[in-house]
Amino acid sequence: MDPVVARYRIPASRTEAEQIGRDIALEQTVEIPAELAVRLELSHSRVGTVREIIPAAEAGPSPCWDIVIDFPAEFASGGLGQLCNLLFGNISLKPEIRLCEVTLPEEVLKRYPGPQVGIDGLRNELGVFGRPLLATALKPRGATAAELAGWAADFARGGGDLVKDDHNLVEADSDAFLDRVKKCLDALAEVEQTSGRRTAYLPNLAGPPDQLEYRVEKCLRWGVTGFLVAPMLLGLDALERLTRQYPAFWWAHPTFAGGHVCGERHGIDPGWFLGTLPRLIGCDGTIFPNHGGRFSFSAHTCHSISHRAREPMSHLAPCWPSPAGGMSFERLPAMAGAYQQDAIFLIGGALLGDPSGLEAATRRYRGALDELFPENRQQSSAPFLSACELPSRDGRPTQNPDEYLPFLDGFRWDGRPPTDYKLSEALPFQAVSRTELIGRNGEETAFDLRYFEIEPGGYSSLERHRHTHVIIGTRGEGRLLVNEGERAIRPFDVAYVPPLKVHQLRNDGLQPFGFFCIVDRDRDRPQAP
Amino acid sequence: MDPVVARYRIPASRTEAEQIGRDIALEQTVEIPAELAVRLELSHSRVGTVREIIPAAEAGPSPCWDIVIDFPAEFASGGLGQLCNLLFGNISLKPEIRLCEVTLPEEVLKRYPGPQVGIDGLRNELGVFGRPLLATALKPRGATAAELAGWAADFARGGGDLVKDDHNLVEADSDAFLDRVKKCLDALAEVEQTSGRRTAYLPNLAGPPDQLEYRVEKCLRWGVTGFLVAPMLLGLDALERLTRQYPAFWWAHPTFAGGHVCGERHGIDPGWFLGTLPRLIGCDGTIFPNHGGRFSFSAHTCHSISHRAREPMSHLAPCWPSPAGGMSFERLPAMAGAYQQDAIFLIGGALLGDPSGLEAATRRYRGALDELFPENRQQSSAPFLSACELPSRDGRPTQNPDEYLPFLDGFRWDGRPPTDYKLSEALPFQAVSRTELIGRNGEETAFDLRYFEIEPGGYSSLERHRHTHVIIGTRGEGRLLVNEGERAIRPFDVAYVPPLKVHQLRNDGLQPFGFFCIVDRDRDRPQAP
Repeated sequence: MDPVVARYRIPASRTEAEQIGRDIALEQTVEIPAELAVRLELSHSRVGTVREIIPAAEAGPSPCWDIVIDFPAEFASGGLGQLCNLLFGNISLKPEIRLCEVTLPEEVLKRYPGPQVGIDGLRNELGVFGRPLLATALKPRGATAAELAGWAADFARGGGDLVKDDHNLVEADSDAFLDRVKKCLDALAEVEQTSGRRTAYLPNLAGPPDQLEYRVEKCLRWGVTGFLVAPMLLGLDALERLTRQYPAFWWAHPTFAGGHVCGERHGIDPGWFLGTLPRLIGCDGTIFPNHGGRFSFSAHTCHSISHRAREPMSHLAPCWPSPAGGMSFERLPAMAGAYQQDAIFLIGGALLGDPSGLEAATRRYRGALDELFPENRQQSSAPFLSACELPSRDGRPTQNPDEYLPFLDGFRWDGRPPTDYKLSEALPFQAVSRTELIGRNGEETAFDLRYFEIEPGGYSSLERHRHTHVIIGTRGEGRLLVNEGERAIRPFDVAYVPPLKVHQLRNDGLQPFGFFCIVDRDRDRPQAP
Repeated sequence: MDPVVARYRIPASRTEAEQIGRDIALEQTVEIPAELAVRLELSHSRVGTVREIIPAAEAGPSPCWDIVIDFPAEFASGGLGQLCNLLFGNISLKPEIRLCEVTLPEEVLKRYPGPQVGIDGLRNELGVFGRPLLATALKPRGATAAELAGWAADFARGGGDLVKDDHNLVEADSDAFLDRVKKCLDALAEVEQTSGRRTAYLPNLAGPPDQLEYRVEKCLRWGVTGFLVAPMLLGLDALERLTRQYPAFWWAHPTFAGGHVCGERHGIDPGWFLGTLPRLIGCDGTIFPNHGGRFSFSAHTCHSISHRAREPMSHLAPCWPSPAGGMSFERLPAMAGAYQQDAIFLIGGALLGDPSGLEAATRRYRGALDELFPENRQQSSAPFLSACELPSRDGRPTQNPDEYLPFLDGFRWDGRPPTDYKLSEALPFQAVSRTELIGRNGEETAFDLRYFEIEPGGYSSLERHRHTHVIIGTRGEGRLLVNEGERAIRPFDVAYVPPLKVHQLRNDGLQPFGFFCIVDRDRDRPQAP
């Protein structure tokens, strides 16, 4: 298996660099002293290996070496948090070590689906081709939802493409958050009715972790295009899980990332941290402070981020570089030259504060972009996809769920026809039907309620899984087989099948055997015993 | 409402510092240019206010100023991620700004329960008083679970107090993780049977975010004392939610925190970041690299962290400072002098690599600690609390759940007597009984299954909540009242009550009305309509 290859820059003499290289290789893997590693006879497959030590390309007056270390790919398993732990966990606490470059093997890359909307998906959704997108941020915090929605509408009327919340718009209360989202969406929909042109809205997903999925699902049902997210605040794996679960436009904000990327001789290369890592997280765009604004990134740093965001990388789709941070009208030609067409220009205060008003200012900026990119606009005839058509979690439809399922003769429910028990036949079963009652039609529950019926002589597959079953007998009588034996299930008997217990339901009687089965919505795939 | 007060250190002239102070106050709140803030007539309640600019206490040869800024407390609502966003979000991307000190108002502090086990709780659990605790780490990664468990037992036999996983022990697969945990617990239990002395075990909680709660619940049922956690990798709010939900000993590891705390003129004061913040997260101990080991923290920095970890702070219990990182036998007296008795001395490689073997080495270190703290040991007669007695989530017992609940006459279930409908009478109801069938007895489900019965003339409370209900009619006939009207509920009718819909169940008939009700396990408190 190919290793994870990391290059670190160390301002030290060659001899010191050798020692530091060995220290890093041990610290980041086995975290034991070198003598002990020798005594335990640790093989190279268990520790990092210094592959080479080379003079740093851009070294200044004092000596500076690049140390290239191979880490066993297996150490990067367990998620992106663990990847950062491996590359720069404990050694982040040591001075003057800079992680400059990372090469991940296919073995690691293949674990991450990457951006699901990406550059093409957003272009198709907005119907905009051949030029950078124009975006703005709703602020200041403290403005009313109606004021913010009004500004969103002004921006849309001026021809803007994307409007996001400022990353300071954070509500502890989901009602307040959803109220703002609804007002902004309504305001944008009204403009779209007149203009026929869609402006996408991306609310800031932050606040209590147990509210995030609720907010995401509500927003997606209402048709938002995606979300602004701060990887450093949400947690890398927690965010990666969200992007995987909900196909939407995920836009990474760099707040609180400066500690990692802003040191000159310490920390992590911004190209990797703000260009590559967001793609691994599944983000479709990455915001970073543009050269020449109110932050201090160099033109070289910005180029490196946008390059990493769009370079070919295995199966991972490219992601939109989104330069921001004190941009102005005068900077547009320079930005166009630096980033070319596949970038989002995020202009906040300059638009909001323009003396001509937000709508007129947006029109002026859009006009300048159109002039800078005169060719190729509207070149594609790709169909317009509304965000409403984005599949929600698990591909479930997003309509309003039925609230009442009257019970009909023959153990059926109105509006819920029975379906096949399983589509796959990997695990054998016989004569079972399944009725999805709750959980597959947009209901906001952590569980699914299903009704199963087994004909005489039939049985469900013999299987085990981490998720549990709760069974309520409903019709006739059947048997639940578990490791230790079997139990009769008659109407209203309740049974619990604990994690990983092998089980099967059988009907050896002469009448249909029916039962409710309640399971967690998030669940693992059944395995053969 | 008192403000959040933050002090930043800026290496600049007084005039530059004034400008930078104003910039920070705007950037971190409304993020708009100063002219625009004036034009929008933003009041002080909506932006940060520079309270004072004072010469920095420890300034070197070049000028250095401390800028004290008041932020409206409301900006810190929404969690610890948002607190960091407010204090050091965007400005982390600007050079040479260092967050030196933070004062949080009661309004913010009261949102965080803080450490739930803390110093007293762990002493009571271990029965160790009057001296620092001796801890070690299981490593290297790549050793088998049996090897690691063997070392845990050696450490316990030598008289060690706490053994944690190395933070590099991360498994993508929960079975592998649990296998290791079980082996270590079994090995420690065997030693305890002979010695009568408990050594606590703290596995490393990392890996796939959708597996974390599963792992926590399994581990707590098996009797682990707590968990090693990396706040920078898990996400601040995600971790805070775990500590709130599961009372256990949560031990914070500083991996990947170096970017924030290791700059001299940039970043965040380690005392706040590694001493105060872990307490807000609810961590009971905080690990940091000790002065004189293989990391570069100064004695002053280490003192600052341990001071912040233990200083009085509103209702928040103190947390164990846990110096670590290349400590040796010779350093013990210095550590004892620096940290006094309420500290955990975490000795990893030096114990594991000691030529006399781990057990003998541990005994020697424990002996040295006993000599350094001769007084006060075993002074308390507080009862010994086993980790098994720690209340689990929601105070539910942790025994093995029943797997079969046969249905008895009169709509009762074996082993599940009906209870009162509600303990609180804040929302009126009448003649309702409740039977908790699944979810309150240790079952691993994301939902609870209850059976309710309403006597003729009775009704449930009229209420609304964010969580949803799924109702299955079971016995007799009743009515479900919702905003738009009412629906009859007869046996096997299924009803779904969406979030925040006002609802009530009534029995206006002459027979008992019974129904199953399935709800998410994590749910909000019902409110009056």
